[in-house]
Amino acid sequence: MAERFDRIWHNARLALMRQDTADLGAVEDGVIAARDGRIVFAGPRADFPSDADAPQRIDCAGRWITPGLVDCHTHLVYGGNRAHEFELRLKGASYEEIARAGGGIVSTVAATRKAGEAELVAGALPRLDALIAEGVTTIEIKSGYGLDTGTEMRQLAAARALGRDRKVTVKTSFLGAHALPPEAGGDKDRYIDLVCREMLPAIAKAGLADAVDAFMEGIAFSGEQTARVFEAATALGLPVKLHADQLSNLGGAALAAQFSALSADHLEHTDAAGAAAMAKAGTVAVLLPGAFYFIRETQKPPVELFRTHGVNIALATDCNPGSSPLTSLLLAMNMGATLFRMTVAECLAGVTREGARALGVLAETGTLEVGKWCDLAIWDIERPAELVYRIGFNPLHARVWRGQ
Amino acid sequence: MAERFDRIWHNARLALMRQDTADLGAVEDGVIAARDGRIVFAGPRADFPSDADAPQRIDCAGRWITPGLVDCHTHLVYGGNRAHEFELRLKGASYEEIARAGGGIVSTVAATRKAGEAELVAGALPRLDALIAEGVTTIEIKSGYGLDTGTEMRQLAAARALGRDRKVTVKTSFLGAHALPPEAGGDKDRYIDLVCREMLPAIAKAGLADAVDAFMEGIAFSGEQTARVFEAATALGLPVKLHADQLSNLGGAALAAQFSALSADHLEHTDAAGAAAMAKAGTVAVLLPGAFYFIRETQKPPVELFRTHGVNIALATDCNPGSSPLTSLLLAMNMGATLFRMTVAECLAGVTREGARALGVLAETGTLEVGKWCDLAIWDIERPAELVYRIGFNPLHARVWRGQ
Ligand SMILES: [Zn+2]
Ligand SMILES: [Zn+2]
Repeated sequence: MAERFDRIWHNARLALMRQDTADLGAVEDGVIAARDGRIVFAGPRADFPSDADAPQRIDCAGRWITPGLVDCHTHLVYGGNRAHEFELRLKGASYEEIARAGGGIVSTVAATRKAGEAELVAGALPRLDALIAEGVTTIEIKSGYGLDTGTEMRQLAAARALGRDRKVTVKTSFLGAHALPPEAGGDKDRYIDLVCREMLPAIAKAGLADAVDAFMEGIAFSGEQTARVFEAATALGLPVKLHADQLSNLGGAALAAQFSALSADHLEHTDAAGAAAMAKAGTVAVLLPGAFYFIRETQKPPVELFRTHGVNIALATDCNPGSSPLTSLLLAMNMGATLFRMTVAECLAGVTREGARALGVLAETGTLEVGKWCDLAIWDIERPAELVYRIGFNPLHARVWRGQ
Repeated sequence: MAERFDRIWHNARLALMRQDTADLGAVEDGVIAARDGRIVFAGPRADFPSDADAPQRIDCAGRWITPGLVDCHTHLVYGGNRAHEFELRLKGASYEEIARAGGGIVSTVAATRKAGEAELVAGALPRLDALIAEGVTTIEIKSGYGLDTGTEMRQLAAARALGRDRKVTVKTSFLGAHALPPEAGGDKDRYIDLVCREMLPAIAKAGLADAVDAFMEGIAFSGEQTARVFEAATALGLPVKLHADQLSNLGGAALAAQFSALSADHLEHTDAAGAAAMAKAGTVAVLLPGAFYFIRETQKPPVELFRTHGVNIALATDCNPGSSPLTSLLLAMNMGATLFRMTVAECLAGVTREGARALGVLAETGTLEVGKWCDLAIWDIERPAELVYRIGFNPLHARVWRGQ
């Protein structure tokens, strides 16, 4: 008797993006079959049972199918926006003038604290929809603009709500250790106490966070403070990740590796020791060219070091109002290639397989392999390089999330 | 008796973008009225006749209206694409390897020569549609990938056809002096003879070009050769423009000014004398940050010199397969601000009023003023700065071309 599937996509070119294939794992005449939302076949038509049956057979007319895209680092949920601050900066306003006009991260924290969950969801939806329109099927969303227990929890609850409002997998990260709130009076250690003793346990108990993040930097938190957050997270069974080595080399990559972090992100100033530690720990390097571009950074992340040491590299938008108001993962790929000289294969792996690895969901998505969720992006292109080469163009033909 | 209009847009915020108003010429509670495709009123509601009548009254719910956008420098019509070349470059391929793999402008010329008009139109339509989806109502399209009379004419005919297929104003530029074709055997002077004596007269006679462009550069044509093209164009009554001072300062800006060029474009290496000459001649500086970004140029165009001398500045995509595969004018604005430090007002003027001026159509479009075509872009934004600040996000709500 013929095997039954829910849906079959045929006459397609596939980029399987498997770990064990060179480059993209291209299949010229490919078929994907799904059942109960999972991939049950992905490969050459020659290997597919010729008597296979399915209520829905979709002729892809030679289009390319990649795994659904994964944006593994975003600050998508926040109140207000910073367009006015951007405008003032271009007019030459000083830091003090911007602050007086209500700019800076403090303004985002104030607007986020004022916003209810529904307002946070409504504000984030157009950004999420822009990413979804480009084939994103999995997205990470951080808190970090509340900096008090209630608002951090509301941000994370809004992120979870986004995952119910749209056909997309949302992974949340608690980023209480993002910045020092104004009311902390400059006392970072006391604020980290609050993060570890009050916020983290409450958030873990409510099941609002899938991971715990921190910002380790001169202008944010020290290695010692970061380690305290990571110890508290680990004690609660939550994996960690880190904003590391963005503006200076404080050893963030090595610290992240020491805690077996899922990822260390930014990494412009990471050195060979950091890269080696990450490789050993299996910590993914998440590069964020949108922030590099927007703040006009000149120090590039050490891509060649990561290659040499065998560190896996992901790419993400870092979508946030202050340093990367970017809502295009395709553009993040172009920037990864243009600005960081990543290859086409590295860029595509960076927004699929490696993005999934950076979120700890590689067993569920990120490649076209049997047993994973059937998360697909179907493209009107002649070759995958077009996804990286073009700037400001979206060739998505269709998107499939969990088989639908 | 009440004055009659065809359509009225009310409850809108307007950015009039007039020459005589500071910044954007913002109107908080504004109305636009159109008759026979032209603007017959654009200003505050308080000044609008309260008994005005129109079959269509559109409540804009407080949205912002700007002039329809003008992309005043594109190479939108061509055969093939160069994604594979981009991929090879990122893998470290040498210039020779790229050439052997069929890369470089020669490959675009070969593909364009092979393509019929319908194929050129079909290839350009998705790019045009991407620009239109962002509110572009006027676009310039150059030839320059044919480099023989028949193909140059076919490229321009395809550009004209695009203007019939879509609700958009197309202005064409003949760019025979773009590069030396392979069959010229290195003889630039003889090729310029062909451009001036055969191509230009044929194209002028067929009414296929609204202007004549050239590429003055070490790797392209000299000042003397460019002047010959400009003299021939002027004799035929066609205005000129120039790819000038992109990779080196050969005095292109000054030469363009000497011929009262509509615009000089790129201008990374233009000096004070060039800027002064442009100001005196009324030649617009068209900046192309997409090419600057894509080829990783580090020499920025002298925006401050242009300001000091009072040169008008436009921004465009330079959409082309080799050095700027960019199909987003919103992104060109963000790049103008981020990379060139242009202000929000300069960026918005650059893709509206100044783009229109660079095409010689400022009397017809580019600002919200009575008598011009009713070309509008209506945006879901809280302030115009968002159009420049955001990266890879399109907040267009509706687009109006000639009143419809
Ligand atoms: Zn971040
Ligand atoms: Zn050009």
